[in-house]
Amino acid sequence: MKNIFFTVGPSQLFPTIKKHIKSALEADICSISHRGEKFQEIYKKTTNNLKELLGIPESWSLFFLSSATEAMERILENCAKEHSFHFIGGAFGKRFFEISAQLGKIPQKIEVEPGLGFAFPDANIPKETELICFTQTETSAGTSVPMEEIYKIKNKYPERLITLDVVSAVPCIEINFSKIDGLFFSVQKGFGLPAGLGVLTMNDECLRKAKKLEEKNHCTGSYHRFSELKKMADKNQTKETPNVLGIYLLGKVTGDMLQIGKENILKDTKEKAKIIYDYFDGHPIYKPFVENRKIRSDTIAVINTPNVSKKIAGKLREKGIIAGTGYKDFKGTQIRIANFPAHSVEDINNLLQEFKNL
Amino acid sequence: MKNIFFTVGPSQLFPTIKKHIKSALEADICSISHRGEKFQEIYKKTTNNLKELLGIPESWSLFFLSSATEAMERILENCAKEHSFHFIGGAFGKRFFEISAQLGKIPQKIEVEPGLGFAFPDANIPKETELICFTQTETSAGTSVPMEEIYKIKNKYPERLITLDVVSAVPCIEINFSKIDGLFFSVQKGFGLPAGLGVLTMNDECLRKAKKLEEKNHCTGSYHRFSELKKMADKNQTKETPNVLGIYLLGKVTGDMLQIGKENILKDTKEKAKIIYDYFDGHPIYKPFVENRKIRSDTIAVINTPNVSKKIAGKLREKGIIAGTGYKDFKGTQIRIANFPAHSVEDINNLLQEFKNL
Repeated sequence: MKNIFFTVGPSQLFPTIKKHIKSALEADICSISHRGEKFQEIYKKTTNNLKELLGIPESWSLFFLSSATEAMERILENCAKEHSFHFIGGAFGKRFFEISAQLGKIPQKIEVEPGLGFAFPDANIPKETELICFTQTETSAGTSVPMEEIYKIKNKYPERLITLDVVSAVPCIEINFSKIDGLFFSVQKGFGLPAGLGVLTMNDECLRKAKKLEEKNHCTGSYHRFSELKKMADKNQTKETPNVLGIYLLGKVTGDMLQIGKENILKDTKEKAKIIYDYFDGHPIYKPFVENRKIRSDTIAVINTPNVSKKIAGKLREKGIIAGTGYKDFKGTQIRIANFPAHSVEDINNLLQEFKNL
Repeated sequence: MKNIFFTVGPSQLFPTIKKHIKSALEADICSISHRGEKFQEIYKKTTNNLKELLGIPESWSLFFLSSATEAMERILENCAKEHSFHFIGGAFGKRFFEISAQLGKIPQKIEVEPGLGFAFPDANIPKETELICFTQTETSAGTSVPMEEIYKIKNKYPERLITLDVVSAVPCIEINFSKIDGLFFSVQKGFGLPAGLGVLTMNDECLRKAKKLEEKNHCTGSYHRFSELKKMADKNQTKETPNVLGIYLLGKVTGDMLQIGKENILKDTKEKAKIIYDYFDGHPIYKPFVENRKIRSDTIAVINTPNVSKKIAGKLREKGIIAGTGYKDFKGTQIRIANFPAHSVEDINNLLQEFKNL
């Protein structure tokens, strides 16, 4: 029996991945030099495809890192001398905050309980803030911050840098890049790739801030400080030997997604999200954890399944359907369902059918 | 025509890799949760195999990072408040030094020209040194530091931490772990894996030093500071979503290598190195770059090919043999040949036959 993974990442591989891995092996992609032309072409192709698919401005820099967690560290090292400000609605927002504290900075925050939204009209950012950190989609709780609220914050505080963790949102989200300064994600979620690659993209404001910190000898890291990343990216290379296969696969999958069309991916995501939430809104017992529809994530649906999440996950597994359980404290009381481009409408309907049969 | 790669890393994939990638895809390894039991078993298996194969003591900690370059950064962040000392004989020794400087430390060094060895009896390490950094095998120059010389340094300076970059040496090297404190490597060289994974292993002295720096609020990094790495490794997990496929493949390949036997790998490496160096020592024009036989690397042979390295590489390529050219300034005047477990005696003989035909 073939399994299908609705786990929130790593998740179901994008349908073309196996084919691309096969072609990578045939073309010796895992043996080529990371200093050679062939690699540089792959690097450039992946960068260009990502920019086109996500609408990232040509002028933005795009760097390959090893994970989204690394991206949190690097952006804090390079864009905040001391003062970061965090909107926290779950475990990954907390991680972003903690990394700032571990780096010796003075992070501040607005924190809400998982599943709840922020009271944006009251959100006052302290004047010393250098970097505002949003976990746009909180994978642990299934919430998302409406992009319009983020843009309003930028309008209110145009001098502060704004960066977004969109790990579980891309490529199923529309972003106005003129209203933010940077974002990052990893590839084992919406892109349906094997894990082990992160992407960080940013405007020149972020690079300028990093340069200023570097010139004043603040600790901005070493081989992955922004000036080094930029210098190497301009050569379509990385300082270290990178995850070449990952960069190749990301180029291929983004190429496939461009063929499908961004519009279709967005439309499908909305459609599948509606099917999921409509079903559970109408379910007598298993209800969506996030009550406020405006902040429900399209890509991560968290469902309350009091005391039976493991039992449900076990029953689904018997049918080859792998669903995630709740995050940490919610492990026993929630099911998390990913709705990524690798999941078809049919897959979602099959999943819900099994819920009906429970 | 099937190519064979003698490049110094990424290089030829270990012969079983394609089979293991296939089995990984069949077993959904790229979709499983990095918080689940199946992943923990893979993590543990890879750790155990590596420890057995390399002879790493049970008491040592072993961490998975994204590259050897990251390992340099992390060990400097966590094991040197200010004073690292570097033995530099080429580009990678220089990188280790530069990372220390970029992190705001005060690195010192003994530096020799590429291809030359260190005058060890005269090597005096300043008393303030906290961490001594060896590039045991210098991939850019084809030199290696004799292990006995490293052990003598440890005997002379038992209070200093000693760490080794053995990126291009493992698993083809015998190491007395009681005479060093830590080492690191990546997997795209001797292990014949796709790039994108680094391994860092160390004794408790390194962890204690890191703890001390952390308690005094020195910048030891965040999610990959040693205390975090250790906390997660004890659970057979990583903080970030790691390169799960890489960790899986490394476990499989080390398993295969244990079957072959460490003794046989060491014996084969010596035998193949002898074939390569004997041939070029006897060659009328193309001579080994490293004249001192005691410091020639068994795994990275650098050959002087004045002004014709690109022509030679091109001719070999026509036969499906991919050899590396010299590093940076030596690009036009050297050929580099990797001698890893993925290369058989027959492969080496075929390569040399093509040199005869040039």
